Amino acid sequence: MLKVVRASAVLQRPLRTHRVPEILYRASQASFSTSQKHEKSKKSTRESILRKGALPVIAMIGTYGLYKYYQNKRQPSCDFVEAKNVETFTAAQIAEHNSPEKGIWVSYKDGVYDITDFVQQHPGGDKIMLAAGGAIDPFWNLYAVHQTPEVWDILEEYRIGNLSNKDQKSHKNMNDPFANEPYRFPIFRVNSAKPFNAEPPLEVLTESFITPKELFYVRNHLPVPEVDPEKYRLEIVIGPKSVKYSLEDLKRLKWITVTTTIQCAGNRREEMSEFKPVKGLSWGASAIGTAKWSGPRLRDVLLSAGLDPNHPSVRHIQFDGLDCDLTGSCYGASIPSRNALSRDSDVIVALKMNDEDIPRDHGYPVRIIVPGVVGARNVKWTHRIVASSKESDSHWQQKDYKHFNPSTSYETADYTKEPAIQELPVTSAITWPKNNSKIEASEERTIPVTGYAWSGGGRDIIRVDVTSDGGRSWREAELIKNPEKDDSSKAWPWTLWKVDLPVGAGQKVEVACKAVDSAYNQQPETIEPIWNMRGFLSNSWHRIQVELEDDSDED
Amino acid sequence: MLKVVRASAVLQRPLRTHRVPEILYRASQASFSTSQKHEKSKKSTRESILRKGALPVIAMIGTYGLYKYYQNKRQPSCDFVEAKNVETFTAAQIAEHNSPEKGIWVSYKDGVYDITDFVQQHPGGDKIMLAAGGAIDPFWNLYAVHQTPEVWDILEEYRIGNLSNKDQKSHKNMNDPFANEPYRFPIFRVNSAKPFNAEPPLEVLTESFITPKELFYVRNHLPVPEVDPEKYRLEIVIGPKSVKYSLEDLKRLKWITVTTTIQCAGNRREEMSEFKPVKGLSWGASAIGTAKWSGPRLRDVLLSAGLDPNHPSVRHIQFDGLDCDLTGSCYGASIPSRNALSRDSDVIVALKMNDEDIPRDHGYPVRIIVPGVVGARNVKWTHRIVASSKESDSHWQQKDYKHFNPSTSYETADYTKEPAIQELPVTSAITWPKNNSKIEASEERTIPVTGYAWSGGGRDIIRVDVTSDGGRSWREAELIKNPEKDDSSKAWPWTLWKVDLPVGAGQKVEVACKAVDSAYNQQPETIEPIWNMRGFLSNSWHRIQVELEDDSDED
Repeated sequence: MLKVVRASAVLQRPLRTHRVPEILYRASQASFSTSQKHEKSKKSTRESILRKGALPVIAMIGTYGLYKYYQNKRQPSCDFVEAKNVETFTAAQIAEHNSPEKGIWVSYKDGVYDITDFVQQHPGGDKIMLAAGGAIDPFWNLYAVHQTPEVWDILEEYRIGNLSNKDQKSHKNMNDPFANEPYRFPIFRVNSAKPFNAEPPLEVLTESFITPKELFYVRNHLPVPEVDPEKYRLEIVIGPKSVKYSLEDLKRLKWITVTTTIQCAGNRREEMSEFKPVKGLSWGASAIGTAKWSGPRLRDVLLSAGLDPNHPSVRHIQFDGLDCDLTGSCYGASIPSRNALSRDSDVIVALKMNDEDIPRDHGYPVRIIVPGVVGARNVKWTHRIVASSKESDSHWQQKDYKHFNPSTSYETADYTKEPAIQELPVTSAITWPKNNSKIEASEERTIPVTGYAWSGGGRDIIRVDVTSDGGRSWREAELIKNPEKDDSSKAWPWTLWKVDLPVGAGQKVEVACKAVDSAYNQQPETIEPIWNMRGFLSNSWHRIQVELEDDSDED
Repeated sequence: MLKVVRASAVLQRPLRTHRVPEILYRASQASFSTSQKHEKSKKSTRESILRKGALPVIAMIGTYGLYKYYQNKRQPSCDFVEAKNVETFTAAQIAEHNSPEKGIWVSYKDGVYDITDFVQQHPGGDKIMLAAGGAIDPFWNLYAVHQTPEVWDILEEYRIGNLSNKDQKSHKNMNDPFANEPYRFPIFRVNSAKPFNAEPPLEVLTESFITPKELFYVRNHLPVPEVDPEKYRLEIVIGPKSVKYSLEDLKRLKWITVTTTIQCAGNRREEMSEFKPVKGLSWGASAIGTAKWSGPRLRDVLLSAGLDPNHPSVRHIQFDGLDCDLTGSCYGASIPSRNALSRDSDVIVALKMNDEDIPRDHGYPVRIIVPGVVGARNVKWTHRIVASSKESDSHWQQKDYKHFNPSTSYETADYTKEPAIQELPVTSAITWPKNNSKIEASEERTIPVTGYAWSGGGRDIIRVDVTSDGGRSWREAELIKNPEKDDSSKAWPWTLWKVDLPVGAGQKVEVACKAVDSAYNQQPETIEPIWNMRGFLSNSWHRIQVELEDDSDED
């Protein structure tokens, strides 16, 4: 066994001595501190990391955000792992080294590494052992926090040789958990490629009441799973009992169709981020869409599986997705059982989106549709539903998708105290004209303005007010409601709107809109009082700047 | 028949030639215009008045408001109708003159008037004929719009003599529809005496989670009816069928108890009015209270009366109160049937408030409790419930308790277009310290701040943020929830809260609070964008000014 490098200086590197949350926090702020001292007990460091929950924090802060940060901070060479004139190993040889006793080897791209002495210092805990004797490429693709020059440097110190050419080739596809993502239309603005997060251009979003599947925003937390419809089963767990449904079984139940808007908690985060930086993907105002969803009521599925809807210990309904990371940790979420079990509940086990099979990006073959509730609880690729006394213990239920006030930081946030976001507040946005565009005013000095408005919880939009003078005067927009009837018991889908807005004599104008829902909640005027570190629920007045075209321009 | 005065100049008075809505609008602005010309056709004037709906408009603007206006504008002598040395008539003699053919006489206080030639010009339409041959005192007490020097002057022109002493005496009690109001504790701040509208001092409002009945705000639209519990019947009307329930019948149904906050749509109107005048009683922040209400579910009452809860034409449930004006026009309201008929509906036919018979001011013997919905739909003294395809056609459902944007005026408002207010938005208020009070800060420079927070629709309060620096930093308050369990399916009652708020070094501080409900709606920062002509739903941040006591004061 050839250990090329084993510099003790490596131990001084901050990565292995920091608590991970702090690393991630600092990474997102500016740069790593190098003043931290190496803690004496490696074991206690590792335990501390595990206690703090490194993985959830990575996911919380957003792998993509960190990746982008490092891309900006320091341009790494793409092929930083240069071939060295050292020994060559095959995958089979590496596979023999998968325990502390035999030594722990891994490969990454064309390099082979003996990390036996490193594993106890791994900030991500003993999950590193999942890669023992194999390639770490998939893990690093999944947890992009590793995609930093600092981490690459550390790894390189443990290099013992090169991976055989043959195995490099065969690893190429295997290594990318995102290798089998579905085709996406190039129209999307991509906020993150892996996992895929993208939204359509705002100016086409409200061209139709129902958003075509090709234009429906995609918010994936993990790679898109590939599901064989023949083998797929939906497992319903009620106490010790478990019942499994094939797609055919689900098709035999009574179906309803519910047209609902789904919105990402981060929709319009970009605006909040412009006011003051936040953590998360930089969504514009198109992380929202409206579709027809069809399938059996969740209530009916649960009852057919034997659930007593009045059982006092059933307080939450949990959903597990098939989208998992390489450690077997999968996406999950839950909703209060009342929302699913009331007799007029419109929560459905959807098999169809806009009358077709649900596209892979949107949860094929089964997505739970929870109208009026944040997208994160509308779990895609659901394969297990658990009637429980507790909420889902998934990271996304417990450590993310919660809301704090503007004075709360990651240091002071108490995630155990705040509820998981369910219903969403009233919002609206201008989809036309485009922000910073030129537009000709009519002879009466008006411009056409269109947009969407929506509120969670089935609250209808009763009014949209639009202003071109900062709120001194308002013009009420004409509301456009769902032209089709369906089985909904409440106002789940958005309201589209249009107005001919007087714009005064000036050449530049700020247009702003605010919606009023049926509980008379209105959008906040500014971002400041609703700002929160995670950039959730950015629903202040939507504002665009428009330049009014001068006829003289055409002379 | 002696007609003392019949000056044709009377016809030039603006009162009879104006359209009533305009009169009322102008009265509230500044003064009557006298430039209007007398319209030629008296009949068409009267019809126009009827079309415009004078009475609803009177009620809408608030009799008390107009009364106060005139009190301020011009101090009338209390006994303006001075005894004149003219003929004396008895009530019996007046009673003989009750038709155009026999002449139309009325009495008012000690005067007798022949108004035969006036009745067609009466701005209130032919309701005046209800007083023909009798005393108009009760009507004028009810419609305080008559309590103006201008109207008194007009009446005096028609005087033909004095009422006999004996009849003056017997009329004294009979004349005041508010003569039999219940006793009220003097602690109330009275916003209108007749009808009675009053609220407790803000600083005692949150001393207990449940508001004692003596401190519960009273919002009456009409005189308080006197109800004989033996004779009382609750009539349920379902299509052509009608079923009547005695109180004993209602006691035999299954009861539930629901603790809910009830709030007046005008709560905190005072603040909105300070920003820019609005129409309506000037409520502080105490037109809100929380009580335990007990009785059968409205759903159960309707089903026991034979209602099919899925009947497609049952869209609204209407409630008629026993509180009526002298024309037999009574208070009424309705709610969407879904709210009453869903299986987990907490809408109840309440017979108990805080475990006792409902006090007269709060609806004895039966009040409909519609949790989460504006007080105006929680109909007091309900004696009839109608399952209908339509909303209540009462003034208060159709022409009041609707919401418009800041740019809408009484001239441009389209009441047919806007929905009737049902669910209320999130709000909160500081109940301690008192506004403009002095308070000593702790050694750590904090002050104790307490208050309430509430949202309609059963949405819980998840957070209250309090600031002493205009929103630059926020302190999260400790939330106090209902300590008792009841049968509620949702979070109907308010959340009380307290916080030790850092106040900085200054001597004067503005404290402000905002609440966040479970749908993440927050209170608007300022009043301007939510201002509306009627002053409804004034829910911006609640702000108080506090002076921090200086220790040196005590030297």
